[in-house]
Amino acid sequence: MIQSKGYAAQNAKTPLGPFNFQRRDVGPHDVMIEILYCGVCHSDLHQARDEWGGAIFPMVPGHEIVGRVTNVGTQVKNFKVGDLAGVGCLVDSCRTCSSCKEGQEQYCEVHWVGTYNSVEMDGKTPTYGGYSNNIVVDEKFTLRISDKLPLEGVAPLLCAGITTYSPLRQWKVSKGHRVAVLGLGGLGHMAVKLAASMGAEVTVLSTSPSKEADAKELGAHKFVVTKDEKALQGVQNYFDFIIDTVSAQHDINLYISMLRLDGTMILLGVPPEAPQLMPFNLIFKRRRVAGSLIGGIAETQEMLDYCAEHNITSDVEVIAMKDINTAYERMLKGDVHYRFVIDMATL
Amino acid sequence: MIQSKGYAAQNAKTPLGPFNFQRRDVGPHDVMIEILYCGVCHSDLHQARDEWGGAIFPMVPGHEIVGRVTNVGTQVKNFKVGDLAGVGCLVDSCRTCSSCKEGQEQYCEVHWVGTYNSVEMDGKTPTYGGYSNNIVVDEKFTLRISDKLPLEGVAPLLCAGITTYSPLRQWKVSKGHRVAVLGLGGLGHMAVKLAASMGAEVTVLSTSPSKEADAKELGAHKFVVTKDEKALQGVQNYFDFIIDTVSAQHDINLYISMLRLDGTMILLGVPPEAPQLMPFNLIFKRRRVAGSLIGGIAETQEMLDYCAEHNITSDVEVIAMKDINTAYERMLKGDVHYRFVIDMATL
Repeated sequence: MIQSKGYAAQNAKTPLGPFNFQRRDVGPHDVMIEILYCGVCHSDLHQARDEWGGAIFPMVPGHEIVGRVTNVGTQVKNFKVGDLAGVGCLVDSCRTCSSCKEGQEQYCEVHWVGTYNSVEMDGKTPTYGGYSNNIVVDEKFTLRISDKLPLEGVAPLLCAGITTYSPLRQWKVSKGHRVAVLGLGGLGHMAVKLAASMGAEVTVLSTSPSKEADAKELGAHKFVVTKDEKALQGVQNYFDFIIDTVSAQHDINLYISMLRLDGTMILLGVPPEAPQLMPFNLIFKRRRVAGSLIGGIAETQEMLDYCAEHNITSDVEVIAMKDINTAYERMLKGDVHYRFVIDMATL
Repeated sequence: MIQSKGYAAQNAKTPLGPFNFQRRDVGPHDVMIEILYCGVCHSDLHQARDEWGGAIFPMVPGHEIVGRVTNVGTQVKNFKVGDLAGVGCLVDSCRTCSSCKEGQEQYCEVHWVGTYNSVEMDGKTPTYGGYSNNIVVDEKFTLRISDKLPLEGVAPLLCAGITTYSPLRQWKVSKGHRVAVLGLGGLGHMAVKLAASMGAEVTVLSTSPSKEADAKELGAHKFVVTKDEKALQGVQNYFDFIIDTVSAQHDINLYISMLRLDGTMILLGVPPEAPQLMPFNLIFKRRRVAGSLIGGIAETQEMLDYCAEHNITSDVEVIAMKDINTAYERMLKGDVHYRFVIDMATL
């Protein structure tokens, strides 16, 4: 077994702290990565505090991982020692169901193995995430990382990036489309950058006028304060797509009414209570509400390559490992532009 | 002006009764139709009782109209005296907005003129529907009716038929798709017939086991009692589409969980209270909820031609005009297989 060290939550109530644990030896198809940076996703906090139920403790969070390959199994073909490599939200799946065969491992019909707070395909071995010095992953679930971009800004692409890229691609967002982004956090700021890079007219919808300059700097063309009745009137029946990244309680009908004929609202966040949906609002303009979950491995690679080509990274604030608990508190207040990333050299 | 007689609601509280009124003279582009049959839509009842608000009284309901042309304007090209003709839910729209130009008059961005309980494009002249002996309609909003099918069974196609045909076409339902139909009433029974005719495997979802024989007779391949836990398990992640025709309160999440990856639930009914939508349920299988409203004129004609070709009509119970109030009461109890149609000769 490989000795690893990281930061873990021992239970739902205590702060994260140092934790020594073991990972499996490098098997024939495995890649071992020395982790350089790991992004801090809002779902890390939800899971470390068991807010979604079923948490597995001790828990080493982290699924926005970039690092350098330090060992490879005998059968590994696509990675060699010294390469940059990344790991996102998935480290395995059944590989045989129709979703897996289509490269949609995130919708595996049997079981997909989350990078942490999950169990391996054996149904019992817990997985430990990226708040640690190393990780061992099957090469099929390991991503190639370009050396053209700053690595700390690449790490959040592995979750925030793919979660917004995948629906934009699925719905074929391109020039001529009007895209609204709701919520300017980790996901939202990536949605703005990616949708703008695809040629769409991007509008940030926000309750807070103070975010306008930031939104425009990220690439948004328009900014609408949703408390401004007159501004709201101007965007009725206006958008082709709304990317809703908000996981706080909010009235989705207000936003659905901003969609034009055949427009689609894409939900990426899960509010604590299920929102009410007014069918009238869908029926009278043939609108749609859809969901989307991260992305498959092939699409994640495509996204990383796309970002390297288009010079797109996440705007990050690099923190030391010891500051993770403070970072969680700041994240809860929305006090981050736009993603915390842990520098693993500080572990 | 043309003298017309029909049945009207004088206000939201009293039963429908005989009513004499005037329609406009036949203009250059108008077709005058002697009405032979008019279907009784559930929305007739909602509107006659002002349950959606804003009702215009006296109200002559009815938007599933078939009859024979008795007069045509000087500029009318596609109809002549003696032709069969039909009128559905729409009798005019702005004709210039992008929706109208695309033949989606039902989504007109300015105003679409309902066949009754609406006002003409002048913003003031009320429209009167098909519970009457005649109607005058612009030929652009008049449908051609085949003489191959029994006319009483054709009348409900003008609303129940197009309301289910349009989403089936929009979502390209065809062989290989699994379609569930929720609610076996006027809309639901047409959804079963149409989806089956397009080659889909059709399942009726019902709370009532007694409907199985009827469902199969209509063309359903499967029948699932939604109170049967075991049967429910068999249709988890199963359907490509669910056509939800229910306008009573119901838990849409139960049904959404029956959709497979990228499956779509299409809402056609408007329950009195907005249902809760669990985003998780959409996100974890990239499912969708969509709405759809009747259909445009060109698509309605396409549907009528399709039904004539495939020998599809509505299953109806023909009633006399004087029995309309009893029919409403029976409709409220779901006591109709599957559409009441008024024989206008009884007026």
